[in-house]
Amino acid sequence: MSQDRIAEKAMFGRLGIPTTRYAAVASMADLERALRRVGLPGVLKTRRLGYDGKGQAVIRSADEAAGALEALRGVPLIYEEFVPFDFEVSIIGARNRQGEIVVYPLNRNLHRDGILRLTCAPHDDKLLQRRAAAYLRRVLEHYRYEGVLNIEFFVRNGRLLANETAPRVHNSGHWTIEGAATSQFENHLRGILGLPLGATTARSHAAMLNLIGEMPPRDEFIGEAELHWHDYGKAPRPGRKLGHLTVLARSAPARDRQARRLLRRIDPLSLSRRP
Amino acid sequence: MSQDRIAEKAMFGRLGIPTTRYAAVASMADLERALRRVGLPGVLKTRRLGYDGKGQAVIRSADEAAGALEALRGVPLIYEEFVPFDFEVSIIGARNRQGEIVVYPLNRNLHRDGILRLTCAPHDDKLLQRRAAAYLRRVLEHYRYEGVLNIEFFVRNGRLLANETAPRVHNSGHWTIEGAATSQFENHLRGILGLPLGATTARSHAAMLNLIGEMPPRDEFIGEAELHWHDYGKAPRPGRKLGHLTVLARSAPARDRQARRLLRRIDPLSLSRRP
Repeated sequence: MSQDRIAEKAMFGRLGIPTTRYAAVASMADLERALRRVGLPGVLKTRRLGYDGKGQAVIRSADEAAGALEALRGVPLIYEEFVPFDFEVSIIGARNRQGEIVVYPLNRNLHRDGILRLTCAPHDDKLLQRRAAAYLRRVLEHYRYEGVLNIEFFVRNGRLLANETAPRVHNSGHWTIEGAATSQFENHLRGILGLPLGATTARSHAAMLNLIGEMPPRDEFIGEAELHWHDYGKAPRPGRKLGHLTVLARSAPARDRQARRLLRRIDPLSLSRRP
Repeated sequence: MSQDRIAEKAMFGRLGIPTTRYAAVASMADLERALRRVGLPGVLKTRRLGYDGKGQAVIRSADEAAGALEALRGVPLIYEEFVPFDFEVSIIGARNRQGEIVVYPLNRNLHRDGILRLTCAPHDDKLLQRRAAAYLRRVLEHYRYEGVLNIEFFVRNGRLLANETAPRVHNSGHWTIEGAATSQFENHLRGILGLPLGATTARSHAAMLNLIGEMPPRDEFIGEAELHWHDYGKAPRPGRKLGHLTVLARSAPARDRQARRLLRRIDPLSLSRRP
């Protein structure tokens, strides 16, 4: 389901989970129909194998349609409305074969160039938390799912619009390693092994920053209290996730201050978009 | 130093750290002199290679001396006074080559049959914490030590008596994996690699119970919130440490209740001694 964006959207629809408008596209005729039905601007995406913003083309006006189709030709596509959202959240939960379900606090995510840059959690909004958790439960129960699953949402005027699912541990949940009672990795294993699931309570307020393209100088960071450094040992390459760091704080405002301070040092361009 | 109990005691003495009275023993004549000087009861121990209560014999009266010496013969020995302590604490710290030192909160330890059963931390006693940390700093600085080091103390009438050191991560610090900002393992690596040391702040109140001889039934425990299960994958054997579990709680009394409850399930004999 989550490998095909059309199947995923259809699933959201069947389970009553609000999502963006969309249409399947296999030809120029399809795309023209899709532009009329879904509207402009929109995003043309590959139905399969897209991640980190790869395999996507934004269409702002009808005359960009042919170029976008040409850029992605040869594979099944989906055209989706472009949602001018206020911010993005994601929610992670786990289910085991006994049907037990646990749900983590909401993650608030900041992307740049299609790549996740920053997650702050818990995003403390009880209404959004309750709704997102309810949607997540529907998906987990519908598939009698075992393990960890993530759903990303756009938030606009307080409404959730499901964007996509990831049937696995998710980058936006890396803060749970230090920030939650049980990490998403441990709960994934517990879920697929049929073990009792662990508590998902947040221990404090966490910000997770991805380290992308090249690693910052480690020794300038790791002496900071409650800063946790993760180096994946990968070769540097533009746009590649090479590691992340998680910082824990006593309050949400303190956490957000830390996040901005660290973004300024590590990824200053992210701040020019949505601080 | 820490491989020879005599060298260790002498070091404590040189650094002004209170310790138990003792004498080196190589013969029956030595032992008789030691009994007169140090007094009764006492413990005859091997100078080297003792751990978990192995290589020790308690001497309650003079006529037990010959038997104890016979049981341990052939290796250099130490005779120490037997201290009727109120409880035991240990303190763990790390130093790196730059001379930076960090110290964890005090551990309060419960042993049975010479084996550590339970650690509760932080043991919240500011005076003891300050004194133990000062003694630990003296040792770390004296040796220009790099990595993690532990000192065990007896506590009697509010006084600390150093018992022994461990120049490595220590069983009584396993709670730091989930319970402190930086685990003792990470700080050991940071220390020996010359990296900045991580914060030693306790995140909550932790109890660590050793799983000894045989593993309890895992699935009856791991569903509990904030209970962390560690299985070392070792073959069961009486008296062998096969794993441990750490439980975190919001307050010291809640932690102590949890510790007693878990001890009753896992290691009920420990409760009959010192609850």
